[in-house]
Amino acid sequence: MALFCAAAQQEPATSLTAAATLDVTAFGARSGDGSDTTPAVRAALEECRRTKARRLVFPTGRYDFWPDRAAEKYLYISNNDEGLKRIAFPLLGIEDLEIDGQGAQFVFHGYISPIVLENARNITFKDFSIDWARTFHSEGRVLAVGEDSIDLEFPEQFPFKVDRGLLVFTGEGKDVYPFGNLLEFNPEKRETAFMARDYYTGPNLLASVIGPRRVRVSVPKITATPGNVLVFGAARRLHPAFTISDSAQIKLTGINLYHCGGMGVIAQRSSDIELDHVQVTPAPSSGRILSITADATHFVNCKGRIVMTDCLFENQMDDATNIHGTYAQVTRRLSSKEVEVKLFNLHQHGFDFILPGVRLEFVHSASLVTYHEAVVRSTTRLNKEFTRVVLDSPLPEELSPGDAVAGVSGYPDVVLRRCTIRGNRARGILLGSRGKILIEDNVFHTPGAAILLEGDARYWFEQAGVRDLVIRRNRFDNCNFGVWGESIIEVGSGIDESHRAESRYNRGILIEDNLFRMFDTGRIVRAYSVDDLSIRMNRVESTADYPPQNQNEEPFDIQFSSNVAIER
Amino acid sequence: MALFCAAAQQEPATSLTAAATLDVTAFGARSGDGSDTTPAVRAALEECRRTKARRLVFPTGRYDFWPDRAAEKYLYISNNDEGLKRIAFPLLGIEDLEIDGQGAQFVFHGYISPIVLENARNITFKDFSIDWARTFHSEGRVLAVGEDSIDLEFPEQFPFKVDRGLLVFTGEGKDVYPFGNLLEFNPEKRETAFMARDYYTGPNLLASVIGPRRVRVSVPKITATPGNVLVFGAARRLHPAFTISDSAQIKLTGINLYHCGGMGVIAQRSSDIELDHVQVTPAPSSGRILSITADATHFVNCKGRIVMTDCLFENQMDDATNIHGTYAQVTRRLSSKEVEVKLFNLHQHGFDFILPGVRLEFVHSASLVTYHEAVVRSTTRLNKEFTRVVLDSPLPEELSPGDAVAGVSGYPDVVLRRCTIRGNRARGILLGSRGKILIEDNVFHTPGAAILLEGDARYWFEQAGVRDLVIRRNRFDNCNFGVWGESIIEVGSGIDESHRAESRYNRGILIEDNLFRMFDTGRIVRAYSVDDLSIRMNRVESTADYPPQNQNEEPFDIQFSSNVAIER
Repeated sequence: MALFCAAAQQEPATSLTAAATLDVTAFGARSGDGSDTTPAVRAALEECRRTKARRLVFPTGRYDFWPDRAAEKYLYISNNDEGLKRIAFPLLGIEDLEIDGQGAQFVFHGYISPIVLENARNITFKDFSIDWARTFHSEGRVLAVGEDSIDLEFPEQFPFKVDRGLLVFTGEGKDVYPFGNLLEFNPEKRETAFMARDYYTGPNLLASVIGPRRVRVSVPKITATPGNVLVFGAARRLHPAFTISDSAQIKLTGINLYHCGGMGVIAQRSSDIELDHVQVTPAPSSGRILSITADATHFVNCKGRIVMTDCLFENQMDDATNIHGTYAQVTRRLSSKEVEVKLFNLHQHGFDFILPGVRLEFVHSASLVTYHEAVVRSTTRLNKEFTRVVLDSPLPEELSPGDAVAGVSGYPDVVLRRCTIRGNRARGILLGSRGKILIEDNVFHTPGAAILLEGDARYWFEQAGVRDLVIRRNRFDNCNFGVWGESIIEVGSGIDESHRAESRYNRGILIEDNLFRMFDTGRIVRAYSVDDLSIRMNRVESTADYPPQNQNEEPFDIQFSSNVAIER
Repeated sequence: MALFCAAAQQEPATSLTAAATLDVTAFGARSGDGSDTTPAVRAALEECRRTKARRLVFPTGRYDFWPDRAAEKYLYISNNDEGLKRIAFPLLGIEDLEIDGQGAQFVFHGYISPIVLENARNITFKDFSIDWARTFHSEGRVLAVGEDSIDLEFPEQFPFKVDRGLLVFTGEGKDVYPFGNLLEFNPEKRETAFMARDYYTGPNLLASVIGPRRVRVSVPKITATPGNVLVFGAARRLHPAFTISDSAQIKLTGINLYHCGGMGVIAQRSSDIELDHVQVTPAPSSGRILSITADATHFVNCKGRIVMTDCLFENQMDDATNIHGTYAQVTRRLSSKEVEVKLFNLHQHGFDFILPGVRLEFVHSASLVTYHEAVVRSTTRLNKEFTRVVLDSPLPEELSPGDAVAGVSGYPDVVLRRCTIRGNRARGILLGSRGKILIEDNVFHTPGAAILLEGDARYWFEQAGVRDLVIRRNRFDNCNFGVWGESIIEVGSGIDESHRAESRYNRGILIEDNLFRMFDTGRIVRAYSVDDLSIRMNRVESTADYPPQNQNEEPFDIQFSSNVAIER
């Protein structure tokens, strides 16, 4: 509100200024009739920009969006797929706006990104849902499993054809929906099947039609239980629901993300992001088991505060959140003060975080121990992979190709409170901010680790390492019923075993007053290279909800760490 | 020379100005050792820009180019594939420069565009060749043909693997080379096999290894002759050798185009292009049958003069040249002076030819008869497909969606002289300029029509129609030995048969003093909707070089035309 008032004082309403609130129907949008809302939103946002309107509202109803007449921009989106995107809500350089759906359903068709913010400030999204007419993934009911093949039945909402012997998922018009991996879900429990693993098949699977909407698909060594649902995961992450870049003060409240073709909310180089009552969940009555096709949320090189309260993150195809920085690999030493660096991971290409004024840490990739820091004076971007970086001071002798650099000029403080995370693939939350992190009063029911601390400079190139992490009053409910983890809370990293003794990559972790409901006596906390770890006042309850996997495991496995206090 | 002198007078050499000639080796380029020349060229071109150097030279030798550290830009290239491209020679906004290879061989690796000009002026390229370490297409020798399968042996230069049952062509590093169509060539005659047709297979063919470098590939109904070569055509046209956009006064002399991943020379919205002694041909001693993967040259919405003299265009995967404009489809009438238009064909997306000041013709797509003209006042580009166009005058009543518009503000004059065109897929030259066109003293030996006049506003959306075309003293040597045409010279268009009587799409054609060497008594000229056609003083010789296909065909088939004079 402070910002609204300040802005209002600077720019009093004039005859040129439209009403503070614009109604999207004034721009031609019509709910309920299947017409394309994209041009109306585009015109309305132009008018918001022109008149500095503060609010854009949608009368309650269903609004459809097609890519045909949408804005277009080439976007590099960390941890998703870059590309030339059509954008339904292009919020580029826009400030001080609330988009209020008033309960509206936004239904998208085909290859389009719902909401993209770039250099936006003080934007609130309120009370609407995002779904797709045809999802980017597909789901088949398991009829039978043979040797190296599986018989499936696809509901009508997942159209397909067998083309030259290969299974191809189709959609509206000529759209096709390539897949890259398979994962089995249990539709009764509404979660990944017990100990189900990923099948990374690539986009080409031989198939033959065996009945109406039924196919036999060749998958080497496939196992599955008839009656379960096999999800064909989307091959690419082209269209996150919310893409937030270089923006600040962004709030989502009362938003239901039923589906999208990528992450639910991806924020990069942005600050002060708040999600309140955001629900990532399959659309009610859709009959779908999967919600969105990748992580529910993801924050890369952000600052300020990241706050998520009263959110539900369920049935998405990857983690509920991942908060981290980015390492670039040093490829060449060019002069005493200049290095060439490379953004290594495909999903980091074009993610330009090395900018003049940014302070960098230098680490050896095997140890991740900071051995040098310097400030960026100037850069020359060769292309989306390579950048030449001039620093303010001479480079140390020990710098050599293969080392990595990451920004240390600021990290976000994080709060995750009263959220529920369940039924999704893989882990719960990945925490890699060096700001203050508070994880409290949440419920986790994840097939992998509920909370994971990672970071590495050789594969994912995600900078992590916490400094002040409190995990309290959470309920960990039958976690680790899948293959993605060895402990309910895991403090790991891509540090070579030979360097773990010297590293204290994570520091200041307090785990207290949590409830661990467990179906076996597996591991509760596994950690290494930590300084200052306290585990106290937690409770453990036994359940019989799943077949026990680990028996008489040591509940706490702490190695190469100092100042560890465990109260059993 | 006039331009050089004028510029020199304006900017006399000063201490800040480098020598008029720069040597690429001064920027780190080294020939013969396989090192990456890309960074040196990039630095040298920057220096050319800074110092206004007039000449960049390469000491004779082989120079290798990799994409890693190349410049990068998203390019829309008409009749090729758009995309984010790495560029070895980024000539963006550069003027008055000669790049002299002095006989150098430029060898490219992977996905990189050799030479891109945008808003460039007075640029000469001289004496170098362009080739690739691994071609974008692949060639297999036919061992045997079974029912719905073919056994092939691939030379080492076309590496492949069979991955999950599918044939995949590989290259350096992780590069793969998808294919989309197959075509049989006769290695003795060095041309497409007699009456061979395209197999549009798509990228996925089942295959199994049957020996060292030998595979059996499933292709429904394939026929071929053992000993012949089956070319797996590149699925996409990502990397033309020369991409010339919005540029003027561009000259290529003594350039050998041995390979590239797209067209050899594609010029769009440019003027005054000259090709002298340009050879499109497979690299000597390479053992390859195919040169480049698409048309040798192609000119879209160009003006000024297009001159090609003493060129060789052979063994490329498509026509030797195609010179035309572009139709956009009218999709909506928005107001009395505003229409929405769409670039329909995928290979025209982003080709923005409708700009303020451009005069447009309006045609019905079935007849292509111009019923209205107007000048563009302003445009709003929605995205690479759709543009809203405001005109200077009211739109006529008869305008309706499905009609098309094209520019009529200028066309190129064309000269093709002493060129040889042979051994390539499809046709010889496609002529669609309304300027003066002179085709003389050339040799054509093409499997399809040697000269084709086309144009349509429903499929390819290429604006054509000649006004002054002279075809004289050419030798047409055993043309039409393949499936791409019904006559040696064809004057067609995508005009509905019901509209051909009213249309005179092509006007002013003189065909004289040519020699037609023919292996049967097939058609020499087929034409419709022409005004002013003269055919005289041509000679016909019979050969026994191919099995006769057509006997006692009427040599001239002229319909719906006026002012036709044929001297037999």
